Amino acid sequence: MEENLDSFEKIKVPALDEILGKKFPVLDDGFIRVVDYMGSDESIVQAARVSYGKGTKKVTEDRGLIRYLMRHHHTTPFEMCEIKLHVRVPMDTWRQWIRHRTANVNEYSTRYSIAIDASQKTNLSEWRIQAKNNKQGSEGFFPDEIGSKLSEREKELQDFARGIYQERLSLGVAREQARKDLPLSTYTEAYWKIDLQNLLHFLALRMESHAQYEIRSYANIIGNEIVNRWCPVAWEAFQDYRMNALSFSLQELEILKEIYKGNKSEVNKLADSYGWLKIIDKRFTKNIERAEFEEKLERLGIEKPWE
Amino acid sequence: MEENLDSFEKIKVPALDEILGKKFPVLDDGFIRVVDYMGSDESIVQAARVSYGKGTKKVTEDRGLIRYLMRHHHTTPFEMCEIKLHVRVPMDTWRQWIRHRTANVNEYSTRYSIAIDASQKTNLSEWRIQAKNNKQGSEGFFPDEIGSKLSEREKELQDFARGIYQERLSLGVAREQARKDLPLSTYTEAYWKIDLQNLLHFLALRMESHAQYEIRSYANIIGNEIVNRWCPVAWEAFQDYRMNALSFSLQELEILKEIYKGNKSEVNKLADSYGWLKIIDKRFTKNIERAEFEEKLERLGIEKPWE
Amino acid sequence: MEENLDSFEKIKVPALDEILGKKFPVLDDGFIRVVDYMGSDESIVQAARVSYGKGTKKVTEDRGLIRYLMRHHHTTPFEMCEIKLHVRVPMDTWRQWIRHRTANVNEYSTRYSIAIDASQKTNLSEWRIQAKNNKQGSEGFFPDEIGSKLSEREKELQDFARGIYQERLSLGVAREQARKDLPLSTYTEAYWKIDLQNLLHFLALRMESHAQYEIRSYANIIGNEIVNRWCPVAWEAFQDYRMNALSFSLQELEILKEIYKGNKSEVNKLADSYGWLKIIDKRFTKNIERAEFEEKLERLGIEKPWE
Amino acid sequence: MEENLDSFEKIKVPALDEILGKKFPVLDDGFIRVVDYMGSDESIVQAARVSYGKGTKKVTEDRGLIRYLMRHHHTTPFEMCEIKLHVRVPMDTWRQWIRHRTANVNEYSTRYSIAIDASQKTNLSEWRIQAKNNKQGSEGFFPDEIGSKLSEREKELQDFARGIYQERLSLGVAREQARKDLPLSTYTEAYWKIDLQNLLHFLALRMESHAQYEIRSYANIIGNEIVNRWCPVAWEAFQDYRMNALSFSLQELEILKEIYKGNKSEVNKLADSYGWLKIIDKRFTKNIERAEFEEKLERLGIEKPWE
Repeated sequence: MEENLDSFEKIKVPALDEILGKKFPVLDDGFIRVVDYMGSDESIVQAARVSYGKGTKKVTEDRGLIRYLMRHHHTTPFEMCEIKLHVRVPMDTWRQWIRHRTANVNEYSTRYSIAIDASQKTNLSEWRIQAKNNKQGSEGFFPDEIGSKLSEREKELQDFARGIYQERLSLGVAREQARKDLPLSTYTEAYWKIDLQNLLHFLALRMESHAQYEIRSYANIIGNEIVNRWCPVAWEAFQDYRMNALSFSLQELEILKEIYKGNKSEVNKLADSYGWLKIIDKRFTKNIERAEFEEKLERLGIEKPWE
Repeated sequence: MEENLDSFEKIKVPALDEILGKKFPVLDDGFIRVVDYMGSDESIVQAARVSYGKGTKKVTEDRGLIRYLMRHHHTTPFEMCEIKLHVRVPMDTWRQWIRHRTANVNEYSTRYSIAIDASQKTNLSEWRIQAKNNKQGSEGFFPDEIGSKLSEREKELQDFARGIYQERLSLGVAREQARKDLPLSTYTEAYWKIDLQNLLHFLALRMESHAQYEIRSYANIIGNEIVNRWCPVAWEAFQDYRMNALSFSLQELEILKEIYKGNKSEVNKLADSYGWLKIIDKRFTKNIERAEFEEKLERLGIEKPWE
Repeated sequence: MEENLDSFEKIKVPALDEILGKKFPVLDDGFIRVVDYMGSDESIVQAARVSYGKGTKKVTEDRGLIRYLMRHHHTTPFEMCEIKLHVRVPMDTWRQWIRHRTANVNEYSTRYSIAIDASQKTNLSEWRIQAKNNKQGSEGFFPDEIGSKLSEREKELQDFARGIYQERLSLGVAREQARKDLPLSTYTEAYWKIDLQNLLHFLALRMESHAQYEIRSYANIIGNEIVNRWCPVAWEAFQDYRMNALSFSLQELEILKEIYKGNKSEVNKLADSYGWLKIIDKRFTKNIERAEFEEKLERLGIEKPWE
Repeated sequence: MEENLDSFEKIKVPALDEILGKKFPVLDDGFIRVVDYMGSDESIVQAARVSYGKGTKKVTEDRGLIRYLMRHHHTTPFEMCEIKLHVRVPMDTWRQWIRHRTANVNEYSTRYSIAIDASQKTNLSEWRIQAKNNKQGSEGFFPDEIGSKLSEREKELQDFARGIYQERLSLGVAREQARKDLPLSTYTEAYWKIDLQNLLHFLALRMESHAQYEIRSYANIIGNEIVNRWCPVAWEAFQDYRMNALSFSLQELEILKEIYKGNKSEVNKLADSYGWLKIIDKRFTKNIERAEFEEKLERLGIEKPWE
């Protein structure tokens, strides 16, 4: 769009138009598809230009501008892009999803209509073991013989719950009440509309490795299959400056400084002063902040500096 | 507070302080209680005074001002009051509740902790019959012999579901996955913080007669027991200008005008032109807008004017 | 869009496409134009269908559904439409505009760039007289000889302010500081993106007769020229159920009931009990609520019933 | 608060109660003061405990929990604290302030009342020079002889503008129109209410060194004088993990890794591949990203590694 033109075409993104309406399968019976969208990488630049009051011309400049905006948390131009998705998700996942308050939502109503006749089923190889060190995580999978038993019992429960639901409906119980004991695994559907800025925030939280597997599966599709096609330059910038970036706290920066100086004793003195190096029975006690820093050091190719 | 004072006390509402922390029971095992609050009727006036740039003095003037603000949808002064509630609700009800996006929420995490060991149970006399004319409503209750059977089956399902949940936990399944088939009737808890303006909007929708019984039970407690104590003048204004007010559409106003004139034939001509008076087999066909208008006429003590 | 299709086209609104980019002039040097949009009347229906879980087919049904949603404040389907406008407004008007928090905004930066060299000028016939009874309103215009003087002085001030601004810039004062004394009449530009539901709320407040003339001029263009083309069915419903509707309070309904019964003495008794009929020096004292009710009665063709 | 208690006291923060209503002066005639608040560090912990479903007891554990929440962007518990400020700011500053959409606002109305008779004045030593390398910044101050001239002209303009305003009011021009040419330096007042999470976000952007001096002055008071007293533990965590933290992009991390290895040629190869090391006339051309990285390296005590 040229600022001085008095008429123009709607911005279109051919790569996204190609998959409009296409269902990307997620989990055993869920999906995501794009219903509509507004804007593109170009719209981000266009909005920033209004703020800056002048144009940049070349594509390379556009890319640089988008990356600058992303790097410096100039978030408003990213709000100028909007997307509408049609999703099918288990209610348990939807409970997490809906916590993001900045979206527009129309959900399938089990008050008005009969609940969708599908529950999310777990394959025998997909049962996850409770993590030892992370109360809200899992680590590894159960062997098939246990998984098989778990899947069997899951089916029993889902069948029983659906049976009771049907029983109630047959008797004429109000739909709004009949649904009360449906399992959280029951699928729901929704139209979900959000701007790019808030969508990226959603993805930063839900594509992250600690996000629950189920919602992460949806987030990965949205990020890699949809945003990637829709606004590829913004998506790349998001990867570089958010997803694959690392933030270091004041304390971590002080230690890093000494590490780069090669001053090991000062490194340990600092860490100790932060309470990271408590020793019991000749071993460091568990300390979350130290553990997190060690992970970051690994990304920098730096070994644990503790003595 | 006097504008010209340079120090003042926190606004307190003794009637609300008295019930701080007190659990109001809702449904079979739910509750609501006030955790904290900020502001009062006085704060609404105080904020409006900043806008108007001068003070009103008498209590009667304050009441008049609050009523004026409510009547004219001057909503920002009502946003100056904030309340924090601790609620315990079935997840099914919570699914509706959480759709109000303008609140701050901290919910009990079944990912981090073991799910609350309580499901909402339906008394044998409380099973509701699906409404004929309203897809999302109920009308009347089942007789006890059917209700008793329904409650029995409900218990079977809830026990089975809880049993499977325990089984999974015992085996070491990750909590985040073990919970996937919990029934929607499972209780959850949350801190819910919201400003008065948005709370009143919530109450307008959820105390309304078409709201589902369960969430209406919570809304009634919040309105009648809590807001009523907290900001009694605003609460009264809300009743007069929202809850017990009626809105008439352009079409309804035109008909009302002719009714007052006593011009029956014009009344019918208008209604017919709106498509309200289609006749099949010598009877008016169902027409929602006509039915809604008839209800409003009843409140005005006016009989159906159709011929 | 058919729910069962796996690919579809972007929804387009030819009537809106025709004016994409076209500048609608407002005030002496402002404008509004549509930059982009997403959705249409059809999208509202589409979203509602997801909630209701089934389709309606005929256009007449679609119209009925949209009107039903509007009438019953089922607002979420209207949030599924989004529009992006490019506006040029005086900063004084923008100060009111920006108070609507639910939009996305990118404004021209006078920190980064030199302020737009245009101030809103008042034609000699457009100077408004302060209203007697409404502190925040105007009534009537000044005669041309006074208006002419006022416009002259306005020009003097705007020229002087612009001169000082230029002086500062020439000296090398930072733009962010040089702008500090620009008059509120200085034009600014912005991209403003908002969903249909929130746009209608904006229009309900800003097209209303008590809204300030300047912002009302913008709102009228947005409503009558833009939304009217974009979502004509929703726009019509909005007129019928919001703009041209009237709400009656509990008290007003009680009086109306007695009016329709023809019970004059009860009407006066009620009004008196509400404090509407205080008499000083044999005349009713000013009472806002009574005056508002009298206006509503006029729309119903009912004369003042006070005795 | 003990979860199992059925009544409790409102949380109070004595250090904040002491300054309730006290005006902290800002700029030449502005101020900030606390009108009311809800919650404290303790409320953050309390809300997190609801999510985690169990209590922690010791103060040291509370501190660790708050720091954990801050570090991991678990933002919802910080939303449980709310504060209401009374501020007096130049309209030019308010234009930036109001862009933060997550607050509740009641502003002084110059439509209803006569504009506050005060404009922000610039001391002769406070006139800032436009920055060369940053379009939206300043560097250094003008000498007093130029500053003195600028302040004089500022006064002339402000007096003239106020004169015209008074002239209009005397003639009976509507207040809503008379104000149209007031300078942006005119003071306005507002009640501004916001939760701690969104307030910290505001402070992160507005205490930052690139924020404009005027709004930064307000932000510094809010942070250092108010939040510091209100929620000292959260405030300290905010300093450590946000204000004084640094984020490194994917590209920066890769270079940092090679710097630690001492692999200078690889460092330069990488930087070159990012386009950071373009050379014209034997000098590096300006590159923002390289410059930003160099600043970060300085904080780590690492010299520029370019060859």
